[in-house]
Amino acid sequence: MEYPEAIEQLIEQFMRYPGVGRKTAERYALYTINQFSETDYADFIETLRRIDEEIKPCEQCGNLTDETLCSICKDKNRDASTILVVEESKDVLVIERTKTYQGLYHVLDGVISPSNGVGPEDLRIKALLERLKDDRHKEVILATNLSDEGETTALYLQRLLKNTDLLVTRIAHGMPAGGNISYADEVTLNKALSGRSKF
Amino acid sequence: MEYPEAIEQLIEQFMRYPGVGRKTAERYALYTINQFSETDYADFIETLRRIDEEIKPCEQCGNLTDETLCSICKDKNRDASTILVVEESKDVLVIERTKTYQGLYHVLDGVISPSNGVGPEDLRIKALLERLKDDRHKEVILATNLSDEGETTALYLQRLLKNTDLLVTRIAHGMPAGGNISYADEVTLNKALSGRSKF
Repeated sequence: MEYPEAIEQLIEQFMRYPGVGRKTAERYALYTINQFSETDYADFIETLRRIDEEIKPCEQCGNLTDETLCSICKDKNRDASTILVVEESKDVLVIERTKTYQGLYHVLDGVISPSNGVGPEDLRIKALLERLKDDRHKEVILATNLSDEGETTALYLQRLLKNTDLLVTRIAHGMPAGGNISYADEVTLNKALSGRSKF
Repeated sequence: MEYPEAIEQLIEQFMRYPGVGRKTAERYALYTINQFSETDYADFIETLRRIDEEIKPCEQCGNLTDETLCSICKDKNRDASTILVVEESKDVLVIERTKTYQGLYHVLDGVISPSNGVGPEDLRIKALLERLKDDRHKEVILATNLSDEGETTALYLQRLLKNTDLLVTRIAHGMPAGGNISYADEVTLNKALSGRSKF
């Protein structure tokens, strides 16, 4: 015996999500069936339809928005002299939450990853170069992840911008807050040592 | 800065699911936005609509189905002499996977739980009594969970069926497979001892 076809379909829909296996997907599907009212179904369907129709990348920075320009690009109080480059839209939100950065962003929509068939031309790099022609922008902060792919992408961008007047910086490598030296990996420790500053 | 409204809505939809907090819901929502194509949205919406329209409890046993009778109730090869009573539709599938039970099922759709305002009249008990009038049924196996509420419900059903010709049995209490005696709780150990059998 198996679940009726529609239930199997819903389980498969949930199994597409990252970190969701068969058991979790079953739990989500049965929760849906047991707990959702008519209106709940209508709401969920309406939300998915809205996402499909309304949400798109900001025409300037690539951040997800329901308008032509995202709320950060539209904000005249933001400091246009710096552009912080991140891999994903999600990273923008994480940095915004620290409430310390006042500049603009640029979302690459991924990283250079030859093994996944992603080259520089698949990222929003051309759009970045186009933006940088505007001489209000003075500094580009490379905030791709500290992974191999993130580092490669940062290096690629650094070389691309070498012969411009722009200041190109990379976020700091080192021990995380609360980090325990005995648990740190070698790369992190090396970077933390070579990046040491006067105390 | 926050996500656009439609994204917030989708995050909230996912947060309704059991065990899904804000961070996981965000991950699911962003996965949807980044990975879903037009057809993916249409498929998900269609699946939800199908679940809403097609899936209902089997008229006989209460198991979830897209027909009037579920595949187990329709199967003439199943042994009608035993009816196994479970709390939820999910339990049917779990027992079916063991491939050892050949009889029929009855889904109660919950357990007696005064603290949650669930009384016997809220469960599919009346439907069970109605079914049991058919004298093909000889044994009722009470397979509600071994929790307080499951035990209460089993006890309630046992008393209700005491003066009938039906054999009323309860699934065994004891140590689980691979169980470690030093980690077992007292109730389990007591039940395992009092339920001991000749080796």
